[in-house]
Amino acid sequence: MADLNRLQKSLGYQFQRLELLEQALTHRSANSRHNERLEYLGDAVLGVVIAEDLFHRFPKAPEGDMTRMRATLVRGVTLAEVARELSLGEYIRLGSGELKSGGFRRESILADAVEAILGAVFLDGGIEACKPLLLNLWKQRLDTIEPGAGQKDPKTRLQEWLQARKKPLPTYEVITVTGDAHNQKFTVHCQVSALEEPVMGEGSSRRKAEQEAAGKVLEILQV
Amino acid sequence: MADLNRLQKSLGYQFQRLELLEQALTHRSANSRHNERLEYLGDAVLGVVIAEDLFHRFPKAPEGDMTRMRATLVRGVTLAEVARELSLGEYIRLGSGELKSGGFRRESILADAVEAILGAVFLDGGIEACKPLLLNLWKQRLDTIEPGAGQKDPKTRLQEWLQARKKPLPTYEVITVTGDAHNQKFTVHCQVSALEEPVMGEGSSRRKAEQEAAGKVLEILQV
Repeated sequence: MADLNRLQKSLGYQFQRLELLEQALTHRSANSRHNERLEYLGDAVLGVVIAEDLFHRFPKAPEGDMTRMRATLVRGVTLAEVARELSLGEYIRLGSGELKSGGFRRESILADAVEAILGAVFLDGGIEACKPLLLNLWKQRLDTIEPGAGQKDPKTRLQEWLQARKKPLPTYEVITVTGDAHNQKFTVHCQVSALEEPVMGEGSSRRKAEQEAAGKVLEILQV
Repeated sequence: MADLNRLQKSLGYQFQRLELLEQALTHRSANSRHNERLEYLGDAVLGVVIAEDLFHRFPKAPEGDMTRMRATLVRGVTLAEVARELSLGEYIRLGSGELKSGGFRRESILADAVEAILGAVFLDGGIEACKPLLLNLWKQRLDTIEPGAGQKDPKTRLQEWLQARKKPLPTYEVITVTGDAHNQKFTVHCQVSALEEPVMGEGSSRRKAEQEAAGKVLEILQV
């Protein structure tokens, strides 16, 4: 594992109990003293700090816009970005079975470690230590996010995410259409190469059903 | 609206800015200065305070157990219970169109108001004021919750919830079974009188598909 002092410098935080940082960087495949409980705590801390910042930053935004912005800021792909900015890959302890894992699995391990670090800082220094650290790591993202239009729909997000990883685009297929002409229900399958099974979506239009299916795929991939 | 001093006594908290409490009790049907933004904030505050308490209360519980316990403690039906304990129904300001609403809709208005009050206390007194108040309101629930077995499955929860409201029990129907004998996929519909459309669930067994469908119904009903 690389020098933890360097990581603490990147975080802008010196741990009193360095073992908490070590635990936050330990995947369950490496040791029984792993980071999953810290990740659970960090997820909640991240949620409240981002929620409070957006609340004050956008004093007129309706609740729905704030919820969508928060979802964008805390989702897996954002966390994995933060992890890369911190070069977390150099610090994480993985079991031998996990060392070779790439792609989706690796992204999710990195994302989880970011939450675990936030949980560790919360335990070590309280919410007062967590807040400036977190707002600093998220600063550029918070400064550029906007309510409404900036939030992309699930199909667009899925397409962009797959393209960025040079994966084939998803295919959508209408499976059934039921109901009268004015009250139709569409069921579609969305298939992506990363998942063995197609994922189903339902909606009152083909477009809505496809959006729902794409959203579920994003959830499964923890994007 | 009933006397806010009485409510503040029940909460164990005196607001410096009483207008925040007033706003927390104002449904969007009553006034443009309504409680939805406060509810968004309160939801996040509730999440982190409960997460932290469970983390320390169950030092050996795995992350999955803590996540399930937290879900039980913050879900709509629990919030509506807290609302009734505080007699929030006497304080909430509703528009004339909403005054008559009963059942599910009313439960959800009550639940949202509890989150909005937590958001208001957070703005007025910070997390330090919020934490004791919230832990006091949730004390009995936190003292009795247990990891694992105590968390009921979705079908049981749905049945109990409907029985408590003297509603007909849900019906489950297998719609399709696909795949080989050792790799089957079941699709079922769950129908409840409160929802016009049946809700679909999928799974590798009939039981799992029914559980998934019941879980979705609970989500839709905000239970």
